[in-house]
Amino acid sequence: MTSTSKKRPILGITMGDPGGIGPEIACKALNEPEIYQVCRPLVIGDAEIMDNALKFCGLTNLKINVLHNPKLGKYAHGVIDVYDLANMPLADLKHKTVTPLQGKASYEYVAKAIELALNKSIDGTVTGPINKAAINAAGFHYAGHTEIYADHTKTKDNTMMLADENFRVAHVSTHVSLREACDRVKKERVLRVIELCQDGLKHMGIAHPRIAVAGLNPHCGEEGLFGNEDDNEIAPAVAAAKAKGINADGPIPADTVFSKMKGGMYDVVVVQYHDQGHIPMKLQGFRYDEKSKTWGAMTGVNITLGLPIIRTSVDHGTAFGKAGEGRANPQSLLDAIHLAAKLAGYHG
Amino acid sequence: MTSTSKKRPILGITMGDPGGIGPEIACKALNEPEIYQVCRPLVIGDAEIMDNALKFCGLTNLKINVLHNPKLGKYAHGVIDVYDLANMPLADLKHKTVTPLQGKASYEYVAKAIELALNKSIDGTVTGPINKAAINAAGFHYAGHTEIYADHTKTKDNTMMLADENFRVAHVSTHVSLREACDRVKKERVLRVIELCQDGLKHMGIAHPRIAVAGLNPHCGEEGLFGNEDDNEIAPAVAAAKAKGINADGPIPADTVFSKMKGGMYDVVVVQYHDQGHIPMKLQGFRYDEKSKTWGAMTGVNITLGLPIIRTSVDHGTAFGKAGEGRANPQSLLDAIHLAAKLAGYHG
Repeated sequence: MTSTSKKRPILGITMGDPGGIGPEIACKALNEPEIYQVCRPLVIGDAEIMDNALKFCGLTNLKINVLHNPKLGKYAHGVIDVYDLANMPLADLKHKTVTPLQGKASYEYVAKAIELALNKSIDGTVTGPINKAAINAAGFHYAGHTEIYADHTKTKDNTMMLADENFRVAHVSTHVSLREACDRVKKERVLRVIELCQDGLKHMGIAHPRIAVAGLNPHCGEEGLFGNEDDNEIAPAVAAAKAKGINADGPIPADTVFSKMKGGMYDVVVVQYHDQGHIPMKLQGFRYDEKSKTWGAMTGVNITLGLPIIRTSVDHGTAFGKAGEGRANPQSLLDAIHLAAKLAGYHG
Repeated sequence: MTSTSKKRPILGITMGDPGGIGPEIACKALNEPEIYQVCRPLVIGDAEIMDNALKFCGLTNLKINVLHNPKLGKYAHGVIDVYDLANMPLADLKHKTVTPLQGKASYEYVAKAIELALNKSIDGTVTGPINKAAINAAGFHYAGHTEIYADHTKTKDNTMMLADENFRVAHVSTHVSLREACDRVKKERVLRVIELCQDGLKHMGIAHPRIAVAGLNPHCGEEGLFGNEDDNEIAPAVAAAKAKGINADGPIPADTVFSKMKGGMYDVVVVQYHDQGHIPMKLQGFRYDEKSKTWGAMTGVNITLGLPIIRTSVDHGTAFGKAGEGRANPQSLLDAIHLAAKLAGYHG
């Protein structure tokens, strides 16, 4: 997973759904000179759409360099290198809208990024937001990026980690019903997610990761009074992890473990189901303002652990509501690029 | 539920487990003159234990007034009125420890408070922290205060609301396994909790409560793809509430609804299970510091809605770890007293 190269890693940044905020946040992120100090960024998308985004964002200082071989990038601030799939005519661009054409295009950027990473033409991938309805309308039946990556890299045992600075969660399960999530709390899977955290955090530069494991039931089931998964599945997984020398702790009641991490006790919390991790992450990182009826900063990065290639991502969606207006915030993409550079072994 | 009296309401404040932080936070809270502007506070506990807590807290400016008739309280700052059950000899006090005697005593304070409220000798109740293991060791088999109140007032259809200023949650279920919580997501129950919120928030002075209802499954099940409770139980409950003129909204994905409430969109979120509400509440209100290995402020109030009497509570436990040292923070108890005064119709 790490690159031992001293050079800045080449990171393939997928443009995301052309009708969403992906193109504009890519333009804004690559207007930050600091990005070029940690990586060689290569947008994988459509050059015409990127050029259009530069215009409506008012970033006329930046130029597009079209290429089809990552070795040929300029990788210097002022030029946006685009691996151009030329699959999205500007005339067909529909901001704020689900269309099969935009779904197909966004899927193809991801597929190309994975291909380039697998054949080592690039050192890692960072994904912009896609729209699930659009990719499904185009005939690609995936729940999201993670499933596309797992399929294209033939990986089964991966996990979704969300990170916002030192606040991180990694999921035992994600897009399944809460009842099925309960079924998936099994010793082997919990242990595997602990191990993926141990490995992932080390690559992020944390020498001795402190890994908390959240309980499934309220108060961790209070000794079997309300459910026995905490005692029968989670506790043995934590014991097995400790036996392997991992600094794991748990199960810990889910209603206090996040305050403990926020206060500095842990580097990550292994969560047992989607919302157990997403509720605290988004409460921390998302800001909504009722007066203006708008979302402010959405910080945080989504990392897929357990793949043979590096993949980080924004942790927000296409934000169709404000797409095409040039006012989207690139912070989550900037965070995702920095983290991918770290995972690729560049600790600057 | 409301009192139309213009007088400050008499609030029975139970002392909690003598071995926990209950006595000391009661002393500290009643050292705040503002409390006497909104209510007439009456500690229901043991006078000797309270006097001891005054000493180790250094609050020698306060005196204890023992009584057994709430009409005889002085209810003025400088004097702590104690309805003295005289059931806890100082010689038997064991701070930081579960003992059957302390469990029995703490249970009796709660039973007395309920009795006084039911016969209208007091206008509402505020509970200090008890220890579940201690009350069970004493032979009282309850999961907590809520269950004692439900039993003693013969109430079935109540709910736990947690409130921290304008951030509030109300639970469809609490102390059951996550699998059983899924089973309990039924239209009738969800509707009842929405109605209890409507009623409760009006008593708190919110004329037109805005009530969000969280989904159970990730992304509210995404049209049945991951679970169908959101479509089959929660959505019909919200529709039925709207038909009754309630400003209810949902189901809303649980990972964004709390950011929306924090930003001002809603007054409460109806949550489908214990941790769905407790995770965001405690992440907001609890502060942990790894350097000092201590918990800082724990804010928030626990309110039982649907009882024939008023009951608010601290939303933390007995905190045995620091009990008896005089350094516990009374903020949650202060908040609980203020809210009980409001619920009793005193909007001062």
